[in-house]
Amino acid sequence: MTKWVYAFGAGLKEGSADMKNLLGGKGANLAEMARIGLPVPPGFTLTTEVCTAFYQNARSYPSDLAPQVQAGMTHIEKALSLRFGDVKAPLLVSVRSGARVSMPGMMDTVLNLGLNDDTVQGLAAMSGDQRFAWDSYRRFIQMYGGVVLGIDHHRFEEIIAEAKKARGVTEDPQLTADDWQKVVAKYKAMVAAEIGKPFPMDPTEQLWGAVGAVFGSWETPRAVTYRKLNDIPGDWGTAVNVQAMVFGNMGNDCATGVCFTRDPATGENMFYGEYLVNAQGEDVVAGIRTPQPMAKERAKAGEKPMEEAMPVVYQQLLDVRSTLEHHYKDMQDIEFTVQRGTLFILQCRNGKRTAAASLRIAIELAEEGLIDRKEAVTRVNPASLDQLLHPTIDPKAKRVVLGKGLPASPGAASGAIVLTADEAESRADRGEAVILVRVETSPEDIHGMHAAKGILTTRGGMTSHAAVVARGMGRPCVAGAGSISVDYTAQTITAGGQTLRAGDVITIDGASGEVYAGLVPMIEPTLSDDFSTLMQWADDCRRLKVRANAETPLDAQTARKFGAEGIGLCRTEHMFFDPTRILAVRQMIMASDEEGRRAALAKLLPFQRQDFIDLFRIMAPLPITIRLLDPPLHEFLPHGNAELQEVATTLGTDVETMRRRATELAEANPMLGHRGCRLGVTFPEIYEMQARAIFEGAVAVAKETGVAPVPEVMIPLVGVKKELDMTRAQVERMAQAVFKETGVTIDYTIGTMIELPRAALVADHIAEAADFFSFGTNDLTQTTFGLSRDDAGKFLPTYVDLGILPKDPFVSIDIEGVGGLMRIAAERGRSTKPGLKLGICGEHGGDPASIAFCDEIGLDYVSCSPYRVPVARLAAAQAALKAGGDRTV
Amino acid sequence: MTKWVYAFGAGLKEGSADMKNLLGGKGANLAEMARIGLPVPPGFTLTTEVCTAFYQNARSYPSDLAPQVQAGMTHIEKALSLRFGDVKAPLLVSVRSGARVSMPGMMDTVLNLGLNDDTVQGLAAMSGDQRFAWDSYRRFIQMYGGVVLGIDHHRFEEIIAEAKKARGVTEDPQLTADDWQKVVAKYKAMVAAEIGKPFPMDPTEQLWGAVGAVFGSWETPRAVTYRKLNDIPGDWGTAVNVQAMVFGNMGNDCATGVCFTRDPATGENMFYGEYLVNAQGEDVVAGIRTPQPMAKERAKAGEKPMEEAMPVVYQQLLDVRSTLEHHYKDMQDIEFTVQRGTLFILQCRNGKRTAAASLRIAIELAEEGLIDRKEAVTRVNPASLDQLLHPTIDPKAKRVVLGKGLPASPGAASGAIVLTADEAESRADRGEAVILVRVETSPEDIHGMHAAKGILTTRGGMTSHAAVVARGMGRPCVAGAGSISVDYTAQTITAGGQTLRAGDVITIDGASGEVYAGLVPMIEPTLSDDFSTLMQWADDCRRLKVRANAETPLDAQTARKFGAEGIGLCRTEHMFFDPTRILAVRQMIMASDEEGRRAALAKLLPFQRQDFIDLFRIMAPLPITIRLLDPPLHEFLPHGNAELQEVATTLGTDVETMRRRATELAEANPMLGHRGCRLGVTFPEIYEMQARAIFEGAVAVAKETGVAPVPEVMIPLVGVKKELDMTRAQVERMAQAVFKETGVTIDYTIGTMIELPRAALVADHIAEAADFFSFGTNDLTQTTFGLSRDDAGKFLPTYVDLGILPKDPFVSIDIEGVGGLMRIAAERGRSTKPGLKLGICGEHGGDPASIAFCDEIGLDYVSCSPYRVPVARLAAAQAALKAGGDRTV
Repeated sequence: MTKWVYAFGAGLKEGSADMKNLLGGKGANLAEMARIGLPVPPGFTLTTEVCTAFYQNARSYPSDLAPQVQAGMTHIEKALSLRFGDVKAPLLVSVRSGARVSMPGMMDTVLNLGLNDDTVQGLAAMSGDQRFAWDSYRRFIQMYGGVVLGIDHHRFEEIIAEAKKARGVTEDPQLTADDWQKVVAKYKAMVAAEIGKPFPMDPTEQLWGAVGAVFGSWETPRAVTYRKLNDIPGDWGTAVNVQAMVFGNMGNDCATGVCFTRDPATGENMFYGEYLVNAQGEDVVAGIRTPQPMAKERAKAGEKPMEEAMPVVYQQLLDVRSTLEHHYKDMQDIEFTVQRGTLFILQCRNGKRTAAASLRIAIELAEEGLIDRKEAVTRVNPASLDQLLHPTIDPKAKRVVLGKGLPASPGAASGAIVLTADEAESRADRGEAVILVRVETSPEDIHGMHAAKGILTTRGGMTSHAAVVARGMGRPCVAGAGSISVDYTAQTITAGGQTLRAGDVITIDGASGEVYAGLVPMIEPTLSDDFSTLMQWADDCRRLKVRANAETPLDAQTARKFGAEGIGLCRTEHMFFDPTRILAVRQMIMASDEEGRRAALAKLLPFQRQDFIDLFRIMAPLPITIRLLDPPLHEFLPHGNAELQEVATTLGTDVETMRRRATELAEANPMLGHRGCRLGVTFPEIYEMQARAIFEGAVAVAKETGVAPVPEVMIPLVGVKKELDMTRAQVERMAQAVFKETGVTIDYTIGTMIELPRAALVADHIAEAADFFSFGTNDLTQTTFGLSRDDAGKFLPTYVDLGILPKDPFVSIDIEGVGGLMRIAAERGRSTKPGLKLGICGEHGGDPASIAFCDEIGLDYVSCSPYRVPVARLAAAQAALKAGGDRTV
Repeated sequence: MTKWVYAFGAGLKEGSADMKNLLGGKGANLAEMARIGLPVPPGFTLTTEVCTAFYQNARSYPSDLAPQVQAGMTHIEKALSLRFGDVKAPLLVSVRSGARVSMPGMMDTVLNLGLNDDTVQGLAAMSGDQRFAWDSYRRFIQMYGGVVLGIDHHRFEEIIAEAKKARGVTEDPQLTADDWQKVVAKYKAMVAAEIGKPFPMDPTEQLWGAVGAVFGSWETPRAVTYRKLNDIPGDWGTAVNVQAMVFGNMGNDCATGVCFTRDPATGENMFYGEYLVNAQGEDVVAGIRTPQPMAKERAKAGEKPMEEAMPVVYQQLLDVRSTLEHHYKDMQDIEFTVQRGTLFILQCRNGKRTAAASLRIAIELAEEGLIDRKEAVTRVNPASLDQLLHPTIDPKAKRVVLGKGLPASPGAASGAIVLTADEAESRADRGEAVILVRVETSPEDIHGMHAAKGILTTRGGMTSHAAVVARGMGRPCVAGAGSISVDYTAQTITAGGQTLRAGDVITIDGASGEVYAGLVPMIEPTLSDDFSTLMQWADDCRRLKVRANAETPLDAQTARKFGAEGIGLCRTEHMFFDPTRILAVRQMIMASDEEGRRAALAKLLPFQRQDFIDLFRIMAPLPITIRLLDPPLHEFLPHGNAELQEVATTLGTDVETMRRRATELAEANPMLGHRGCRLGVTFPEIYEMQARAIFEGAVAVAKETGVAPVPEVMIPLVGVKKELDMTRAQVERMAQAVFKETGVTIDYTIGTMIELPRAALVADHIAEAADFFSFGTNDLTQTTFGLSRDDAGKFLPTYVDLGILPKDPFVSIDIEGVGGLMRIAAERGRSTKPGLKLGICGEHGGDPASIAFCDEIGLDYVSCSPYRVPVARLAAAQAALKAGGDRTV
């Protein structure tokens, strides 16, 4: 005989957590709690196999199902000394669906099943509350009518509206027991008219109706579509859970509450929570009555802790707390109800907690011996570390939301609105806190972004210029806040009908993307000992090295502070935008021949060399990957007419010539244009200057400190091996020249970005000329998808909403597509050169899921914004632990 | 003993054509001619192994090399009854390098080697021409001094300049024997001063000097760089060829000439060529004397055919002609010299010919039994067929070149310059021939391009809008003629200092890219019976089907005329630009909600349906692949202010709203933007309208003619399977709706473009939802390389020049990169769905090398511009023949 029904509670332990395929997620969890001796309200689960059989047999149940369900009901009745359909002591049950994974489109819940015109009296008697009984009854009819009988919810709401109108009141709580009784009568009449027969009074008929509705909902169009989009096989089926209702509001020996086995805010090892006597679960959250604390220790004057009010039950709860922590080996969030002095646990799950609590709990659990250090490392969500490194909005603070954008760079900041980078700098120089607000930022705004406390843009995505640069600097940033509009002329910003002037104070929260008017209080970050301890444990576990993307001394110092093991991406073009250099850069661009370009580049050489000297001093002897010039030249030209005129004057040329050159350089698709090593090939003098600056800088630092830095020169946008051959030869020539001139030789390597699909495909050839590969996954994502990150905002959110893409591929690597190319590149590259060093320097280098993938395909390091380094260290450790013994490191 | 030297000529047959690795290309060819009995001047080849040994042994020769060289020289001396260094009858030789492949940077040729102060007298005596002898001598010193002794050529030129100044003349031919003798003296003095010792007088020393220079040139930086860029191994080495000099200018029993075994212009089977008595090879081409015909039959009045002037030698040449055609089984181009009545063949090779000759020769050779039909099919260069399908510039016509661009669409055309599409149309309507000249074209210019005889743009590449559309229409087009500038305001074009006004006549040659002032005479194409015959033979050989890219009835008719087996790409957006529709399209774009868009689309439906009815009538029952809307919406909006205003008025909106919408739609990288199925996903109503139009059109034609067309609906820019799931469902719903409404059901399929790297990588998934794949290799090339075809003009030519890329990847598929992805997609797609139909519809579908690749990876069809269909049929046949028995078709 097939076992179709698994009972739980009141001593029965037929299922367990590992039977999720058979019992569904919810059923398996209920069974597990029962199995470890928690007092869960008794119940039973109809397995997913019932669902499968139901559809295989033209929507009819197995013949031996009914007796097993009956046995399940009897189990509940006995456990609670109640009877299903009994007039005096009626058993009420809930019926819920429960597939392996939670799924929209499925029937959710019918509560209070078993109520009818007779049993409602029994409920009234047991609870001593007529109003509660009739309200429960009408809720049951409404739920059952909606989800089982398919009646539109408006039909029910109309009846309540009439009832309130008749009584001249506006809120549900103002209706009395009598009112609800009348509502029930009208509900029943309406339902009968709709379905052509009376509302079912027989509890068993009600039960089978609800069970049938759950199974039926497995094949609704919405559920089918969802499964198709999420690759969930149709033959998985759903389970059905039938469980006794318990009530915490049947008198003063009843209660309900929510508690945590440790303090979820601080992680302190003490019993934490709230409860209410004679109340329902929703009363605790509704805020009408003030919940009381659990432990005496936490009670303030006038409060009545449960420890004193219900000492016996409290003691039981302490036992439950201990059982749960030892069973789940983690802090638990528990919902409980006390019905007539009997404790029921309704739910337990790993408790949500702050990042600080997360660290403390993990470390203390390890120190208590419940888990080991490796396990502790897996317990902290890497992304949550952001909370510890940046100021956060005080959760208790009042705030006026002006608008919302993308959470582009974590942390919160307040300051006066400024609309230009220059003003940001000058006001910051005067000691003012400012927020730079721009439609979008460009490399010319870098100084203003540095000066500002935070950055707000109204256009652009998670990898827009503002977002990338802000993350690199550790500045909070909200990007692409489309509902806010900026008027540069009027010097105002407008949002939600409100207009603020430049100088007005706003607050941005880069973790949530919200923008607030005025100054909102914040909590400053402190790096606890727990943080260092966990980072140390993480470092002991990981295989991947972690580097930082950095180009300024400040970035480099931050990177070292956070434990970066080198620089994985130093973007040399950022150095070109400095006001002291941009003129020479523009002269270089405006030059009509190579000679002119060389003259301008000669002016840039000392600056660039000094940049590298500064970085090498900070980082030596750690490696520094320096990417040669990447963006198209037109990015360095001014755009507006006035600016063009100004630059023309400075350059001693006319605005027409400037404009013509700008037009010549303009590109239809700059992302796919004349940039990267294509510049190095067509204007070799640019890379020659940069290479000379690198080697002269390295030699200078080696002479000065005796410790030679290890420059790793990186050629961007290589798609063809010969591009690397040619540019590599340029760099090598410069190295030899500098070594000969200075009499000092240092170690260096030359490698390339892998950021074009073609480069990945011919990686075996490219590897012949490369000492290392660094995956540029921003551009690789753009080209693999044929998706411009600047333009994707128009449809990418829709794609994620519709489930066409599981995540924004600019945030987390698209493992199937982009990841497929990375796999090909890694394999082919190492087939030519087994020891080829592989890294990643795209924005994905700081994303935990992407880091796990990088670990899996055998990269040597990841590189990310300095402020993401701790996140990456932890994520790398978790990835290594997950890979476990499968791999020899 | 290693054989280092292979002799040829005068009865010796030591080498042959298949010994290219040992003898180099040139040596093997000389050996082959000797081997089949042709009278080549005797000589010998030092093998490539000598070169290898030379470098392996610190630049010293094998000890047994010298005796073998000496034996070779003796062989030559005996054959010609001359002696090397003899004062009376001196042997002179040429020394040439000859690697397996021709290679820049290698020493080329030293002629007349063996001359010195004594032997020059012998040469003068033998030739009876003092001036010739001294001129030959000074040429030898100059060549030897330059390539062997490394003396700058300016040093020699200075001396000649002085000599001419002294004589008061300006041209070399005005110098006398005495003058040259003085030049020789000065040369020798200058060389002695330069190298610190006298110019070598000993012929054997001269010989070894030249041989050493050839081997030395193998390792010059230029040769090394070239080998590196072209993947030529350094250990291949070069051979050295030493060959007797023969002279056609030693008297009236001497002659020199060039002839063809058949007429290279028409292919007629008759002996064709020109010769000159008592002349050197260069005299024939120099045009100072008028060459005479070979055959009596071809002689005009007053001409002296060789058949009469030198009947014995002529008869020998006829034998050579027959030997060569039977040996090489193809028409040969022969260079010969007659020295004192003895015939020498200096070179033979497959003769260049016109396309018409190529066809006729191939067919007649097959009919004569020299080759079979399959071989005949391989003999015609598919690309040359263009000549037969389009007017060509009369090669004899005089012309003034204004500028040069890319040969973007073959054929020549003359007409008045017009600078706008509207004017092109209105003047064409009045019967005028016009050439549309634009900086670049956009879809709004289509009507003007149709109306024009040809199109000239000053910007854009081989796959720019102008180029693609012109090829599709069969209009000649020169694109990207950067040296020509267009001034729309002044209504002029300027090129090479010349300014032409609108209305002035120009001629463009789309086959060469040249632009001429005025009307240049042309030759009109005629399709001969040879053409049909060869096409028929080709069709018997090929496996690949050939379709055409077509969207207008005219295109479709042309496609059928040229033998297309269906339409492989019908771009529906081209239909949107018609003036009768563009207004509704713009209303659709300006609509603020779905309802507004649907209203505008409803207006478009009847037009689009009629488009499809017209195409289906022409093509049924052949298949038609219809691509749903692909370009971003902003392409349909006007750009200029005036146009914006005009459209705003027509749409009943204001220009500000228009501008705002245009700004909203603007994209940083439109190529990677909101286009293709991304439009279908976000605005499903667009694809719904198009699908409805397709099915209503197909049903209408099925009802009307009884023959149902087979629409193949193609979804563009799919990168994620769910995109295809969703858009496929939209199309299927429309099909079902139309079938239900009309009561008629027709066959159709739904497939996708593979034009993004990601699509290729996940082709196994995508194939689940696709009935066919069509490779969109234009976009696939752009994304794989990260290369915008609109912007690549700034560096792609440099890339091809430097050998970084072998060819423009937009013209011929990049087999390693883009082809690698196509292979992955084909394999993965068919792993899911073995019968999956695969085709290509990018511009590469008409490129012979790309077609061969498509055949190799098992595509089912290629699709190309209508005028390329014959090219594709022939290329497909050649590909199948090349694959040969390796594959069961």
